[in-house]
Amino acid sequence: MLLNQQFLFTPGPTPIPERVQLAMNQPMIGHRSQAFSHLLEDVSQKLMPIFGSKDPVLLLTGSGTSALETAAANVIEENDHVVVIVTGAFGDRFANICEAFGANVHRLTIEWGKICEPEQLEDFLNSLDYDIKAVFATYCETSTGVINPIKELGEITKRIAHSLFIVDGVSCIGAVAVDMESWNIDILVSGSQKALMLPPGLAFIALNENAKRVIQSCNTKRFYLDLNRYLASYENDKSTPFTPAVSLISGALEVCHMIEEEGLEQVISRHQLLKRMMREGLKAIELLTFVADEYASPTVTAVCPGNDMANPIKKLLQEKYSITIAGGQKQLKGQIFRIGHMGYCTPFDILKVLSALEMSLHDLDGRNVFGKAIKAAEEAWKQYV
Amino acid sequence: MLLNQQFLFTPGPTPIPERVQLAMNQPMIGHRSQAFSHLLEDVSQKLMPIFGSKDPVLLLTGSGTSALETAAANVIEENDHVVVIVTGAFGDRFANICEAFGANVHRLTIEWGKICEPEQLEDFLNSLDYDIKAVFATYCETSTGVINPIKELGEITKRIAHSLFIVDGVSCIGAVAVDMESWNIDILVSGSQKALMLPPGLAFIALNENAKRVIQSCNTKRFYLDLNRYLASYENDKSTPFTPAVSLISGALEVCHMIEEEGLEQVISRHQLLKRMMREGLKAIELLTFVADEYASPTVTAVCPGNDMANPIKKLLQEKYSITIAGGQKQLKGQIFRIGHMGYCTPFDILKVLSALEMSLHDLDGRNVFGKAIKAAEEAWKQYV
Repeated sequence: MLLNQQFLFTPGPTPIPERVQLAMNQPMIGHRSQAFSHLLEDVSQKLMPIFGSKDPVLLLTGSGTSALETAAANVIEENDHVVVIVTGAFGDRFANICEAFGANVHRLTIEWGKICEPEQLEDFLNSLDYDIKAVFATYCETSTGVINPIKELGEITKRIAHSLFIVDGVSCIGAVAVDMESWNIDILVSGSQKALMLPPGLAFIALNENAKRVIQSCNTKRFYLDLNRYLASYENDKSTPFTPAVSLISGALEVCHMIEEEGLEQVISRHQLLKRMMREGLKAIELLTFVADEYASPTVTAVCPGNDMANPIKKLLQEKYSITIAGGQKQLKGQIFRIGHMGYCTPFDILKVLSALEMSLHDLDGRNVFGKAIKAAEEAWKQYV
Repeated sequence: MLLNQQFLFTPGPTPIPERVQLAMNQPMIGHRSQAFSHLLEDVSQKLMPIFGSKDPVLLLTGSGTSALETAAANVIEENDHVVVIVTGAFGDRFANICEAFGANVHRLTIEWGKICEPEQLEDFLNSLDYDIKAVFATYCETSTGVINPIKELGEITKRIAHSLFIVDGVSCIGAVAVDMESWNIDILVSGSQKALMLPPGLAFIALNENAKRVIQSCNTKRFYLDLNRYLASYENDKSTPFTPAVSLISGALEVCHMIEEEGLEQVISRHQLLKRMMREGLKAIELLTFVADEYASPTVTAVCPGNDMANPIKKLLQEKYSITIAGGQKQLKGQIFRIGHMGYCTPFDILKVLSALEMSLHDLDGRNVFGKAIKAAEEAWKQYV
């Protein structure tokens, strides 16, 4: 057996930079100290450009799903009508959460692997004869690897539904452009374990004044995820209402430093490069991508290898090449595999996965494609630098 | 200025052992991997003796308050009658959570600094003419430093109310004895950042078959904290329904190893020793404890120095001696200070705080008590070894 060095390419959790790891290793501090207040304020402010938010970003202790629930449970009251755009498993989860809180959910269901086209939302909203409280959308749908046209969807939401526009940015914020104000986003949530290069356990919520007004008057039963408590604690003394994940927040500050140093523009274009290299490489070895180039996310690529090859490739990458990727979810189980390329990821990481794919195809059916994906990816890289 | 080495003596968060820190620094792994399932199963099982539970302990990603809410929101339905024993700020929080979920809360309010005597609960339950769904109690009330007689309260709950008995063990589990079955506890929750020696961000829930039945039929709106989802994921494939705090769970395994190596009995008696040393030391320098010895928690000691000295002492400990302790909460603000001594804490740590107190008293009003607290604490230590 080779040296047991493991390579993580799931679309979350993602690898943690050594600097961030070190930052999380600082001695524990009390969460009612001045030192913690400064840390929280610093992180909440440095996250503002990353979320395209005009207000400091709130931090909650929980999984990405707790961020989705926070966005829903602070807005929805029993019997409210809401629209959820479902382009995959995480849109479906958003809809399930809204239903769990008693909303009448109008699902705009899109074929998996496709984005929600602006006209589809426009027609759907026009067809509904209800007062819509909110439209929920998924920016990057992790289960298929599409990236929805959030700016256009936001414009239509405001023009037709005049409602809140709430966006799940879990698997892309920190890797893509976003501007809450000009894109008409009222609430934007994310998690720590994706492009933000942290372990799982922190949830991020950015929100505007519209959202605050609705949240203030929302009478849905909640306590731990009650945003009014987080807003008040932050305003009063830059604290959190409940004991926060202190070490993850120390790590988050270092992540913000790293993004500032590279430059947010550069971070975003690096992810575009990673996407391009991955897709050119896959094409060169005739592995079909599940999503058309123009709809594809810069953070995760779904591959449709055909001939029941998805699971064998995934298994071989793990067992022989120590590379962990993700399989398909729900109806895509066994049909696709998914490669995460976000956060702490460079062009060399893309080459690593592509090389392992070249090796695996030879292992599995004798195909000789050595070097082909790498060549195509390097050519894409060359155009960029 | 002296070397800036900081010493954390708040009753949570508490210092993290180096071994645990190292364990949390392992490379990130995917949460849908075999490796993670093994880790989760291992931790859930190793926590069983620590929680005195016959079933594996469930892990959620959240603060201690998310553990309290989980215990409440999975049981309470609108208009249910529940009893909450309130011996301080955290009992009050438990009551507030129950109210937030629509329960009729009967508060058995005890003077702060006292425990709930078994007869008080007996009389209170006998005085109520309602069908009680659950009795909520706080094992260690962090705001005052009392430890409630959970075994006796459980016996009375079962005998008179025939209801669920739900216990907040956040600031003591891992430092005190507990047996869910013989103590009649149906749900016992805790958090990571107290005696369990981890950073904040993990919540622990132990529950029995009674509780599972109630939780299964509870129709309260919930999603992220829905225990049925956690039970199903654990049973099906030793996983969690939502992306868990992987690095904290790696740390939790190392904590379990440390507790196994020292021996749970020994861990519990070490905390008794720490309490004894702290209290004997305080007496020797005439600093009044807020709680009588027999009611006092082995994990946190509240001190009532009189003459408006609480805040000046706390400030001086921080600024001159780099020791962080906690102040009083709510009506005890400025009246007391609190010293946490749980988890990664040895007799030498108690001597460190006592010594800083001796120094501070001299700084503040010229009292010459040098060595007195230390002598008394060492004598208590000597009896133990």
